[in-house]
Amino acid sequence: MDRIPILKLGSALLVTIQVDMHDQLAMALEEDLTKKIVDTGASGVLIDISSLEIVDSFIGRMLDNIAAVSRMLDAETVVVGMRPAVAITLVELGLSLNGVRTALNVDRGMALIQRPDLRKEVAVDDDDA
Amino acid sequence: MDRIPILKLGSALLVTIQVDMHDQLAMALEEDLTKKIVDTGASGVLIDISSLEIVDSFIGRMLDNIAAVSRMLDAETVVVGMRPAVAITLVELGLSLNGVRTALNVDRGMALIQRPDLRKEVAVDDDDA
Repeated sequence: MDRIPILKLGSALLVTIQVDMHDQLAMALEEDLTKKIVDTGASGVLIDISSLEIVDSFIGRMLDNIAAVSRMLDAETVVVGMRPAVAITLVELGLSLNGVRTALNVDRGMALIQRPDLRKEVAVDDDDA
Repeated sequence: MDRIPILKLGSALLVTIQVDMHDQLAMALEEDLTKKIVDTGASGVLIDISSLEIVDSFIGRMLDNIAAVSRMLDAETVVVGMRPAVAITLVELGLSLNGVRTALNVDRGMALIQRPDLRKEVAVDDDDA
Protein backbone atom coordinates (compact mmCIF):
# COMPACT_ATOMS: atom_id res chain seq x y z
CA MET A 1 0.00 0.00 0.00
CA ASP A 2 1.76 3.12 -1.18
CA ARG A 3 -1.25 5.38 -1.52
CA ILE A 4 -4.14 6.23 0.78
CA PRO A 5 -7.39 6.32 -1.20
CA ILE A 6 -9.27 9.62 -1.41
CA LEU A 7 -13.02 9.27 -1.82
CA LYS A 8 -15.23 11.94 -3.34
CA LEU A 9 -18.36 12.45 -1.29
CA GLY A 10 -20.62 15.09 -2.75
CA SER A 11 -18.68 18.33 -2.49
CA ALA A 12 -16.16 16.89 -0.04
CA LEU A 13 -13.22 14.52 -0.12
CA LEU A 14 -12.89 11.78 2.48
CA VAL A 15 -9.67 10.17 3.65
CA THR A 16 -9.62 7.37 6.21
CA ILE A 17 -6.28 6.95 7.93
CA GLN A 18 -5.90 3.25 8.72
CA VAL A 19 -2.22 2.51 8.44
CA ASP A 20 0.87 3.77 10.17
CA MET A 21 1.92 6.98 8.48
CA HIS A 22 5.51 7.50 7.44
CA ASP A 23 7.20 10.36 5.62
CA GLN A 24 6.68 9.09 2.11
CA LEU A 25 3.05 8.09 2.65
CA ALA A 26 2.24 11.45 4.24
CA MET A 27 3.87 13.33 1.36
CA ALA A 28 2.02 11.22 -1.19
CA LEU A 29 -1.26 11.87 0.62
CA GLU A 30 -0.68 15.64 0.67
CA GLU A 31 0.17 15.63 -3.03
CA ASP A 32 -2.79 13.46 -3.99
CA LEU A 33 -5.15 15.56 -1.90
CA THR A 34 -4.12 18.87 -3.39
CA LYS A 35 -4.38 17.43 -6.88
CA LYS A 36 -7.82 16.00 -6.15
CA ILE A 37 -9.09 19.24 -4.60
CA VAL A 38 -8.19 21.06 -7.80
CA ASP A 39 -9.52 18.31 -10.08
CA THR A 40 -12.87 17.99 -8.32
CA GLY A 41 -13.37 21.52 -7.02
CA ALA A 42 -14.09 20.05 -3.60
CA SER A 43 -15.05 22.53 -0.90
CA GLY A 44 -13.85 20.41 1.99
CA VAL A 45 -11.62 17.59 3.15
CA LEU A 46 -12.69 15.12 5.83
CA ILE A 47 -9.91 13.14 7.50
CA ASP A 48 -11.12 10.23 9.60
CA ILE A 49 -8.70 9.19 12.33
CA SER A 50 -11.08 6.95 14.28
CA SER A 51 -8.75 3.98 13.92
CA LEU A 52 -5.70 5.83 15.23
CA GLU A 53 -4.91 5.01 18.84
CA ILE A 54 -1.96 7.39 18.89
CA VAL A 55 -1.54 10.76 17.20
CA ASP A 56 2.02 11.95 17.62
CA SER A 57 3.63 15.19 16.55
CA PHE A 58 4.34 13.76 13.08
CA ILE A 59 0.67 13.08 12.39
CA GLY A 60 -0.29 16.36 14.03
CA ARG A 61 2.04 18.25 11.71
CA MET A 62 0.72 16.35 8.70
CA LEU A 63 -2.87 17.30 9.60
CA ASP A 64 -1.83 20.92 10.06
CA ASN A 65 -0.04 20.89 6.70
CA ILE A 66 -2.99 19.39 4.88
CA ALA A 67 -5.32 21.96 6.44
CA ALA A 68 -3.03 24.85 5.49
CA VAL A 69 -2.60 23.74 1.89
CA SER A 70 -6.31 22.93 1.49
CA ARG A 71 -7.19 26.38 2.81
CA MET A 72 -5.01 27.90 0.08
CA LEU A 73 -7.16 25.98 -2.37
CA ASP A 74 -10.36 27.18 -0.69
CA ALA A 75 -11.22 23.85 0.92
CA GLU A 76 -12.00 23.43 4.60
CA THR A 77 -10.31 20.55 6.46
CA VAL A 78 -12.22 18.74 9.19
CA VAL A 79 -10.67 15.96 11.27
CA VAL A 80 -13.36 13.49 12.35
CA GLY A 81 -13.61 10.51 14.68
CA MET A 82 -10.87 11.44 17.12
CA ARG A 83 -10.82 9.06 20.08
CA PRO A 84 -11.14 10.61 23.55
CA ALA A 85 -7.74 9.24 24.58
CA VAL A 86 -6.15 10.82 21.51
CA ALA A 87 -7.65 14.21 22.36
CA ILE A 88 -6.26 13.96 25.90
CA THR A 89 -2.81 13.00 24.65
CA LEU A 90 -2.77 15.81 22.09
CA VAL A 91 -3.54 18.40 24.74
CA GLU A 92 -0.95 16.91 27.10
CA LEU A 93 1.63 17.09 24.32
CA GLY A 94 0.71 20.70 23.64
CA LEU A 95 -0.41 19.80 20.11
CA SER A 96 -3.70 21.62 19.88
CA LEU A 97 -4.12 21.33 16.10
CA ASN A 98 -4.97 25.01 15.90
CA GLY A 99 -5.32 25.12 12.16
CA VAL A 100 -7.60 22.12 11.98
CA ARG A 101 -11.32 21.98 12.62
CA THR A 102 -12.71 18.83 14.25
CA ALA A 103 -16.06 17.05 14.30
CA LEU A 104 -17.25 13.98 16.19
CA ASN A 105 -18.16 11.99 13.11
CA VAL A 106 -18.37 12.11 9.33
CA ASP A 107 -21.98 13.31 9.27
CA ARG A 108 -21.18 16.29 11.47
CA GLY A 109 -18.03 17.00 9.48
CA MET A 110 -20.05 17.01 6.26
CA ALA A 111 -22.51 19.43 7.85
CA LEU A 112 -19.62 21.74 8.74
CA ILE A 113 -18.35 21.71 5.18
CA GLN A 114 -21.73 22.14 3.54
CA ARG A 115 -23.11 24.84 5.85
CA PRO A 116 -20.67 27.70 6.34
CA ASP A 117 -23.04 29.26 8.94
CA LEU A 118 -22.35 26.30 11.22
CA ARG A 119 -18.62 26.82 10.80
CA LYS A 120 -18.69 30.10 12.64
CA GLU A 121 -20.61 28.71 15.60
CA VAL A 122 -18.14 25.88 15.85
CA ALA A 123 -15.24 28.29 15.51
CA VAL A 124 -16.54 30.11 18.58
CA ASP A 125 -16.87 26.82 20.45
CA ASP A 126 -13.29 26.01 19.55
CA ASP A 127 -12.14 29.23 21.17
CA ASP A 128 -13.93 28.32 24.38
CA ALA A 129 -12.41 24.86 24.54
CA MET B 1 -4.31 -2.39 12.94
CA ASP B 2 -6.72 -5.12 13.99
CA ARG B 3 -9.95 -3.42 12.97
CA ILE B 4 -11.10 -1.68 9.80
CA PRO B 5 -13.00 1.50 10.68
CA ILE B 6 -16.66 1.71 9.69
CA LEU B 7 -17.92 5.23 9.04
CA LYS B 8 -21.55 6.25 9.29
CA LEU B 9 -22.58 8.38 6.36
CA GLY B 10 -26.18 9.48 6.58
CA SER B 11 -28.21 6.28 6.29
CA ALA B 12 -25.27 4.25 5.01
CA LEU B 13 -22.09 2.73 6.39
CA LEU B 14 -18.80 3.17 4.56
CA VAL B 15 -15.82 0.85 4.72
CA THR B 16 -12.58 1.58 2.88
CA ILE B 17 -10.42 -1.48 2.33
CA GLN B 18 -6.80 -0.32 2.41
CA VAL B 19 -4.85 -3.16 3.92
CA ASP B 20 -4.27 -6.75 2.97
CA MET B 21 -7.18 -8.78 4.25
CA HIS B 22 -6.57 -11.95 6.20
CA ASP B 23 -8.97 -14.36 7.87
CA GLN B 24 -9.10 -12.68 11.23
CA LEU B 25 -9.45 -9.16 9.85
CA ALA B 26 -12.21 -10.25 7.48
CA MET B 27 -14.09 -11.97 10.31
CA ALA B 28 -13.71 -8.92 12.54
CA LEU B 29 -15.01 -6.69 9.75
CA GLU B 30 -18.06 -8.88 9.17
CA GLU B 31 -18.83 -8.92 12.89
CA ASP B 32 -18.34 -5.18 13.31
CA LEU B 33 -20.44 -4.44 10.27
CA THR B 34 -23.41 -6.54 11.33
CA LYS B 35 -23.28 -5.00 14.81
CA LYS B 36 -23.11 -1.50 13.37
CA ILE B 37 -25.98 -2.12 10.93
CA VAL B 38 -28.18 -3.13 13.86
CA ASP B 39 -26.96 -0.29 16.12
CA THR B 40 -27.42 2.45 13.54
CA GLY B 41 -30.31 1.07 11.52
CA ALA B 42 -28.29 1.70 8.37
CA SER B 43 -30.02 0.94 5.10
CA GLY B 44 -26.87 0.28 3.13
CA VAL B 45 -23.20 -0.64 3.23
CA LEU B 46 -20.65 0.90 0.86
CA ILE B 47 -17.37 -0.97 0.50
CA ASP B 48 -14.66 0.98 -1.28
CA ILE B 49 -12.02 -1.19 -2.93
CA SER B 50 -10.38 1.52 -5.04
CA SER B 51 -7.00 0.88 -3.45
CA LEU B 52 -7.07 -2.86 -4.12
CA GLU B 53 -4.99 -3.90 -7.10
CA ILE B 54 -5.94 -7.52 -6.72
CA VAL B 55 -9.23 -9.06 -5.64
CA ASP B 56 -8.79 -12.79 -5.19
CA SER B 57 -11.35 -15.45 -4.32
CA PHE B 58 -10.84 -14.78 -0.62
CA ILE B 59 -11.82 -11.12 -0.92
CA GLY B 60 -14.59 -12.06 -3.35
CA ARG B 61 -16.03 -14.49 -0.83
CA MET B 62 -15.77 -11.92 1.93
CA LEU B 63 -17.69 -9.38 -0.15
CA ASP B 64 -20.34 -12.00 -0.95
CA ASN B 65 -20.63 -12.89 2.74
CA ILE B 66 -20.98 -9.31 3.85
CA ALA B 67 -23.64 -8.70 1.22
CA ALA B 68 -25.58 -11.82 2.24
CA VAL B 69 -25.53 -11.02 5.95
CA SER B 70 -26.35 -7.35 5.36
CA ARG B 71 -29.31 -8.34 3.22
CA MET B 72 -30.63 -10.43 6.14
CA LEU B 73 -30.51 -7.23 8.17
CA ASP B 74 -32.26 -5.28 5.40
CA ALA B 75 -29.20 -3.35 4.27
CA GLU B 76 -28.03 -3.18 0.66
CA THR B 77 -24.32 -3.73 -0.04
CA VAL B 78 -22.64 -1.77 -2.82
CA VAL B 79 -19.00 -2.27 -3.78
CA VAL B 80 -17.55 0.97 -5.12
CA GLY B 81 -14.35 2.08 -6.82
CA MET B 82 -13.40 -1.19 -8.47
CA ARG B 83 -10.42 -0.75 -10.79
CA PRO B 84 -10.87 -1.81 -14.41
CA ALA B 85 -8.08 -4.38 -14.10
CA VAL B 86 -9.76 -5.89 -11.06
CA ALA B 87 -13.05 -6.24 -12.93
CA ILE B 88 -11.27 -8.01 -15.78
CA THR B 89 -9.48 -10.37 -13.41
CA LEU B 90 -12.68 -11.17 -11.52
CA VAL B 91 -14.47 -12.15 -14.71
CA GLU B 92 -11.49 -14.21 -15.89
CA LEU B 93 -11.49 -16.02 -12.56
CA GLY B 94 -15.20 -16.69 -12.86
CA LEU B 95 -15.87 -14.63 -9.73
CA SER B 96 -18.78 -12.51 -10.83
CA LEU B 97 -19.79 -11.29 -7.35
CA ASN B 98 -23.40 -12.17 -8.10
CA GLY B 99 -24.76 -11.18 -4.72
CA VAL B 100 -23.03 -7.82 -4.68
CA ARG B 101 -24.12 -4.62 -6.36
CA THR B 102 -21.41 -2.31 -7.71
CA ALA B 103 -21.11 1.41 -8.42
CA LEU B 104 -18.33 3.46 -9.98
CA ASN B 105 -17.83 5.72 -6.98
CA VAL B 106 -19.14 6.55 -3.52
CA ASP B 107 -21.58 9.19 -4.75
CA ARG B 108 -23.24 6.76 -7.14
CA GLY B 109 -23.24 4.07 -4.47
CA MET B 110 -24.99 6.42 -2.06
CA ALA B 111 -27.56 7.20 -4.73
CA LEU B 112 -28.22 3.47 -5.16
CA ILE B 113 -28.78 3.04 -1.44
CA GLN B 114 -30.93 6.10 -0.98
CA ARG B 115 -33.13 5.67 -4.03
CA PRO B 116 -34.61 2.19 -4.27
CA ASP B 117 -36.10 3.06 -7.67
CA LEU B 118 -32.58 3.26 -9.08
CA ARG B 119 -31.75 -0.13 -7.62
CA LYS B 120 -34.18 -1.89 -9.91
CA GLU B 121 -32.82 -0.26 -13.04
CA VAL B 122 -29.36 -1.29 -12.03
CA ALA B 123 -30.55 -4.79 -11.22
CA VAL B 124 -31.81 -5.08 -14.79
CA ASP B 125 -28.50 -3.79 -16.09
CA ASP B 126 -26.74 -6.41 -14.00
CA ASP B 127 -28.75 -9.15 -15.66
CA ASP B 128 -27.74 -7.89 -19.09
CA ALA B 129 -24.07 -7.80 -18.22
